[in-house]
Amino acid sequence: MSDSRDKLMVAGLPGNEPLARALAELLGAEALELEHRRFPDGESYLRLHGDPKGASVVFVATLDHPDEKTPPLLFAADCARELGARRVGLVAPSLAYMRQDQRFKPGEALTSRTFARWLSNHFDWLVTVDPHLHRYASLDEIYRLDSIVVPAAPALADWIAESVDKPVLIGPDAESEQWVSVVAEMKSLPWRVLTKKRHGDRDVQMTLPDLTGLEDHTPVLIDDIISSGGTIAEATRHLLEHGLKAPVVVAVHGLFGDRARELLGHAGVQRVVCTNAVNAPESEIGLSRLLAPAARQLATRD
Amino acid sequence: MSDSRDKLMVAGLPGNEPLARALAELLGAEALELEHRRFPDGESYLRLHGDPKGASVVFVATLDHPDEKTPPLLFAADCARELGARRVGLVAPSLAYMRQDQRFKPGEALTSRTFARWLSNHFDWLVTVDPHLHRYASLDEIYRLDSIVVPAAPALADWIAESVDKPVLIGPDAESEQWVSVVAEMKSLPWRVLTKKRHGDRDVQMTLPDLTGLEDHTPVLIDDIISSGGTIAEATRHLLEHGLKAPVVVAVHGLFGDRARELLGHAGVQRVVCTNAVNAPESEIGLSRLLAPAARQLATRD
Repeated sequence: MSDSRDKLMVAGLPGNEPLARALAELLGAEALELEHRRFPDGESYLRLHGDPKGASVVFVATLDHPDEKTPPLLFAADCARELGARRVGLVAPSLAYMRQDQRFKPGEALTSRTFARWLSNHFDWLVTVDPHLHRYASLDEIYRLDSIVVPAAPALADWIAESVDKPVLIGPDAESEQWVSVVAEMKSLPWRVLTKKRHGDRDVQMTLPDLTGLEDHTPVLIDDIISSGGTIAEATRHLLEHGLKAPVVVAVHGLFGDRARELLGHAGVQRVVCTNAVNAPESEIGLSRLLAPAARQLATRD
Repeated sequence: MSDSRDKLMVAGLPGNEPLARALAELLGAEALELEHRRFPDGESYLRLHGDPKGASVVFVATLDHPDEKTPPLLFAADCARELGARRVGLVAPSLAYMRQDQRFKPGEALTSRTFARWLSNHFDWLVTVDPHLHRYASLDEIYRLDSIVVPAAPALADWIAESVDKPVLIGPDAESEQWVSVVAEMKSLPWRVLTKKRHGDRDVQMTLPDLTGLEDHTPVLIDDIISSGGTIAEATRHLLEHGLKAPVVVAVHGLFGDRARELLGHAGVQRVVCTNAVNAPESEIGLSRLLAPAARQLATRD
């Protein structure tokens, strides 16, 4: 029997409209238009155009630069609920505040826990892509809502297989082995990992693994996050010094700090491609087909 | 008996350090230094330098442009509590999100209620200055914490009496009568209110009250908030057209939207002065002496 319980609506926060539209189409959901503007004193004005009464509402918001984005997102969630939405969820392909999970120095704020509490208070569920979990074993350690972590690996593997000639996947450091090995195995591609020894803040030594027989391949550097770009730039220089081709860089979350693009360009990368977990000019790898089943599963739960 | 219950600490959010220092001095409190910086992806890093264990902590944060300021403020409050503060309060001389107190159009977010819930969840008490209450009778309608509203009127009255020759206080519209009359009576100054009739978004007619015998006085336009500057600019033009002197403008909250200063300058104001409820070049009227007793009262409560 079809009733209002089946009503599914998708709303994109500013900048997330393309992914919201793609998800709405895949889910067969209605678009819920979100109007957002700022008053002269910087306060947000929000309005939902459409009737979420009885509906399961899916908000789409990537959360890089989270401070200015978080209040409008939580206002919108409250608004949908007050207007009668029966379930309010969040697709945040790039989750924020996973970094500060313990006090490395006395007096530090545990932002990951506070941020998790906010999202848990305002949403019923969360879908995200490869969060940088660091010392947390699972989101459930700090998030008190239903969540699904979607791996970007299948999308990265497809893109590499289609777009790169004779790829050899390279992880820039030991931590990246988890991404690189999975992506490589999906398409039976060769892969290697660089090892990095840190002798201080600026003194990092990299060791190249054996690439005998792969000299004519295109190195594909894979990482979960590009932030400062320092690790990838260093790995690129190292590959080039050993006579390999200019690498293609493939990352899940393209956060690109101030000088990251410049740094990667100078280091000699051939091309940088990211998923649309973050909105950047490099975000060529779409994730909507991977996100839709997870969002459907949590949005339609009773 | 002096014990840790007496320990009072004051921390200023970025930009609020001068007011925090002034308050700490008046309260005989320790300064609690707050370190705040941003990672390349825009996430906040916060650290409290000092030991708030057992202390009553007072955070000072003016909340214009609130979206980017709110997450760091709430992180800091949580951090103080986790480090053992027995009481965590907020002096927010300029409170945010008082504007949207009902749905004027269907689907609008009631930001005032959600924002009040956040502050109420993270702080034990709140001191603010002349919040623009609109349709709320009191902060208690939406805030669930102890609060004291400090009126800026005594500080405005002192400044005018000391700085303006033969002032006549003028309210730019009927709503401002509440501020103007109180300030005027404190120093037994003459006062008048302009009446405004709105015939559409841009067609507003102002009527000058009788100013016979006050032609040689300096008009002092008083309002609670300068946002777009439109009302004050219009009132200024009106006063000048009727042969009065260029007015001095005195306001509590100098929010100054993009073109507000330009607008006021073109209209012909002599000078604009605000309180330090908001940090602006015009914020010459200090409020720390009015804020300190209210902060002391709530910070030292058991």
